[in-house]
Amino acid sequence: MANYTKTTIGNENRYELHEALSLTGAEISLNRLPAGAGVPFVHAHKNNEEIYGILSGRGYVLIDGESVNIKAGDWLRIAPAAKRQFSAASDEGISFVCIQVKENSLGGFTKDDAIIC
Amino acid sequence: MANYTKTTIGNENRYELHEALSLTGAEISLNRLPAGAGVPFVHAHKNNEEIYGILSGRGYVLIDGESVNIKAGDWLRIAPAAKRQFSAASDEGISFVCIQVKENSLGGFTKDDAIIC
Repeated sequence: MANYTKTTIGNENRYELHEALSLTGAEISLNRLPAGAGVPFVHAHKNNEEIYGILSGRGYVLIDGESVNIKAGDWLRIAPAAKRQFSAASDEGISFVCIQVKENSLGGFTKDDAIIC
Repeated sequence: MANYTKTTIGNENRYELHEALSLTGAEISLNRLPAGAGVPFVHAHKNNEEIYGILSGRGYVLIDGESVNIKAGDWLRIAPAAKRQFSAASDEGISFVCIQVKENSLGGFTKDDAIIC
């Protein structure tokens, strides 16, 4: 495995990084929804937790039937079994990053995993 | 574990999400470096791959001694053993997200892990 891989996001509505960067511990997607649009299905996961970061705009996410308002700067963890569906606001689009990782997969991190060179 | 957790990033120079969101599969940090500043040490990892997404501004990262220019929209995977050090440009700051996950920890994902409800 090369010591690093790099890609550049353009103006795609969805860009998946797993293959582009040869990721082995996560799938990461960049997503845009225009004003009034929503993901057209509700989904959950078997084993993966998802972390969502709102990069611009605002909207809402239904999580197990609860509507949660979201705006730029908000970050959420959603448990695997939770049923989720993201939508942009009616008058403003939204862009967000979705990070998919296996629940309970992280061992040590930061000070416990880093080596200062 | 609750079905979701949520937090909001303010204007901190560094914000760590692991505890704030009770993450179990990743550590995620939001980072800002002003123009001319750099992380004051070089580091590598034992077991974790890191994925960096540049959210605004520009700068460069030294990876095993190679200088790689980075700007908003760029995403990189850096292998655990690679020695890395991030800096802002001399005349412009940079903000980036750093996602730390255990190398080779992801099993199925997206279509192989999602359940359409």
